[in-house]
Amino acid sequence: MRFLHTADWHLGKKLNGFDLAADQWTMFRQIESVALTEKVDALVLAGDLFDRAVPSEATVDQLKKMLAQLNLVDQLPILAISGNHDSAPRLGMASAWYRAHGLYLVTEFAQAFEPIVIGDTQFFLLPYFTLQAARNYFADEQLRDLNQVMAKVVATMQAQFAPGKHHVLVAHFFAAGSQRTPASETMIEVGGLAAVDVTLLAPFDYVALGHLHNPQALKTKWVKYSGSPLKLSASEATMTKGVRLVDLTTDEVRWQPLPQHPDLVKVTGSFAELTAPEQVAVVDRENYYLLTLTDQNEIPDVMAKLREFYPRILSLHFTRQLNQPVVQTMHNLTEKSPLEQLAAFYEQTTGQPLTARQQKWAAEGLAKIKGEDDATTQA
Amino acid sequence: MRFLHTADWHLGKKLNGFDLAADQWTMFRQIESVALTEKVDALVLAGDLFDRAVPSEATVDQLKKMLAQLNLVDQLPILAISGNHDSAPRLGMASAWYRAHGLYLVTEFAQAFEPIVIGDTQFFLLPYFTLQAARNYFADEQLRDLNQVMAKVVATMQAQFAPGKHHVLVAHFFAAGSQRTPASETMIEVGGLAAVDVTLLAPFDYVALGHLHNPQALKTKWVKYSGSPLKLSASEATMTKGVRLVDLTTDEVRWQPLPQHPDLVKVTGSFAELTAPEQVAVVDRENYYLLTLTDQNEIPDVMAKLREFYPRILSLHFTRQLNQPVVQTMHNLTEKSPLEQLAAFYEQTTGQPLTARQQKWAAEGLAKIKGEDDATTQA
Repeated sequence: MRFLHTADWHLGKKLNGFDLAADQWTMFRQIESVALTEKVDALVLAGDLFDRAVPSEATVDQLKKMLAQLNLVDQLPILAISGNHDSAPRLGMASAWYRAHGLYLVTEFAQAFEPIVIGDTQFFLLPYFTLQAARNYFADEQLRDLNQVMAKVVATMQAQFAPGKHHVLVAHFFAAGSQRTPASETMIEVGGLAAVDVTLLAPFDYVALGHLHNPQALKTKWVKYSGSPLKLSASEATMTKGVRLVDLTTDEVRWQPLPQHPDLVKVTGSFAELTAPEQVAVVDRENYYLLTLTDQNEIPDVMAKLREFYPRILSLHFTRQLNQPVVQTMHNLTEKSPLEQLAAFYEQTTGQPLTARQQKWAAEGLAKIKGEDDATTQA
Repeated sequence: MRFLHTADWHLGKKLNGFDLAADQWTMFRQIESVALTEKVDALVLAGDLFDRAVPSEATVDQLKKMLAQLNLVDQLPILAISGNHDSAPRLGMASAWYRAHGLYLVTEFAQAFEPIVIGDTQFFLLPYFTLQAARNYFADEQLRDLNQVMAKVVATMQAQFAPGKHHVLVAHFFAAGSQRTPASETMIEVGGLAAVDVTLLAPFDYVALGHLHNPQALKTKWVKYSGSPLKLSASEATMTKGVRLVDLTTDEVRWQPLPQHPDLVKVTGSFAELTAPEQVAVVDRENYYLLTLTDQNEIPDVMAKLREFYPRILSLHFTRQLNQPVVQTMHNLTEKSPLEQLAAFYEQTTGQPLTARQQKWAAEGLAKIKGEDDATTQA
């Protein structure tokens, strides 16, 4: 048994307003190409197929075309589960009909205990679930946390292990030992305990996880996140993205990176550096940019100017330090003269005090405004 | 070929806040029972499976269970199309996988021209469509209205008629000669012309329509609406509901009524009549009621009192006439004394003038209030 392990496609996802549909088609073609080139026996898709419970009609159509291509055209068996971003009833509407074609899409907890047998391997497909769903299934209201549940889940599955077969678990949760990706995932809402202890998963030959977008989140060899095949948030900018190729016969798990284009790129420098001709010449205008400016001075209309060279800016930050929190200054506002307030604001914003010349200009300007104000009051 | 023709299930529909899910299960069991008893070769479902484009998860689950029962358990071929209430991409997500099981669900205009052959019959499944979809398909921006489109559609289908086979069209639109149901359907939005001329449909042996909820809407023998199998609005209270059984071999079209329970019932009478013990004794508390009261007098808290005996009231009307529109009186308000205003309001509301005794009470009450007002003003 050789299979491709992927997860967290998040179809329908938007990155700061940028539609990722075209990028997700690119990602899909890469995954399909790897699957066909490597002649895998099956493709595992470990949850979060969609980015939201009710995806748009266009996104529904996109998943339809992707699954049809892999399953009906390429004739590849697919082992998929719903993740916390998916609506299980909506995604699972046609599960019973998919099976005849070798598309196994499990969205209900109870179905996790009916192994799918392909060749020499039993696959157990455990969708994202709530603690209450597990309590109902086991008729045990005493189940307090995710580890208690998983101990029971694994024991129930083990009772169905066929000797001489490989045993693979496909699941979508947060496993202990993994590092949480800060921006893209909410904690799994199962009981008080948030993470599954990886030692509970020891009976399986391989555990194909979805949920965390970082493929390096777990160090264990046989319990792995594939990560999302596409960078989906700023916190994923420096991650390598790809899929895993699992060969149960040779005991080999291979990481297959997927080149990102467009890529999500962090660039730090001064405005002059970022807009210098030699830099601009090598900018890939398709990429998404997370820009950090090191300038100390205010640059008027900076976003519009940068967009000339970086059309897809996701965020713009500044390295300059504020001298003190704004809220603190606000309390002292009434105790300061307009010139003092202006000087403090300038220093806070730029990190540098007003020069003597700027002070002179500011004093003159303020005096002029005050004169006009007084005139208005008298009129 | 013998098939059952139904349409307009409108799963997820609420009637004035009442959830119809349980009634739709009853309806489904009846239809399934007819299909099995009559040993039909197929079931035709002519659009509006759902009541809305994005049904709830529970409603998605309901359709899944109904289709699974008919198609996977009862092994009945199903010929279905999307209606104007359905979202074609959402409903059609799994169409390609359904086919292997004999569940033919067509949601795209282009698929209408690939006939489904079951036994001796070619079925053409034409989903609800927009004029623009037809223009795109025929690459003809000159198509101005629904009849022009349907002439082309029928000609294109006819070119594929296999000799010796029966030819059935399944469609979801408003056909000429039919009477519109006032409350439940919006006009079909195809071009300026709203209705298809039934004479265009002559080449078919039978046309199984959905859209209108009245099964008697068309007088033609071979072009028929099945109507909705459940009463779905006040305007359908007096309709007979059911399904059609079509036998192409014997040239027979049979109407099979489906008893409605709970039923949607109109009752007219005075409050005393509607709440009389002999009437209350025969009220079916499960039914939905459209009540009309003939009383001339105001009945305080009338809705709560009626609900004791009729728990599921959809609407309450009064036969009494208002003497003049309220808005007209409002203009005259400032020209009238408080007693005149009160008398006019009473007469408008009850249809009868104040009695001498009521006038005396009212005058005394108003005088008392005025005294209190004056005292307040002085304080």
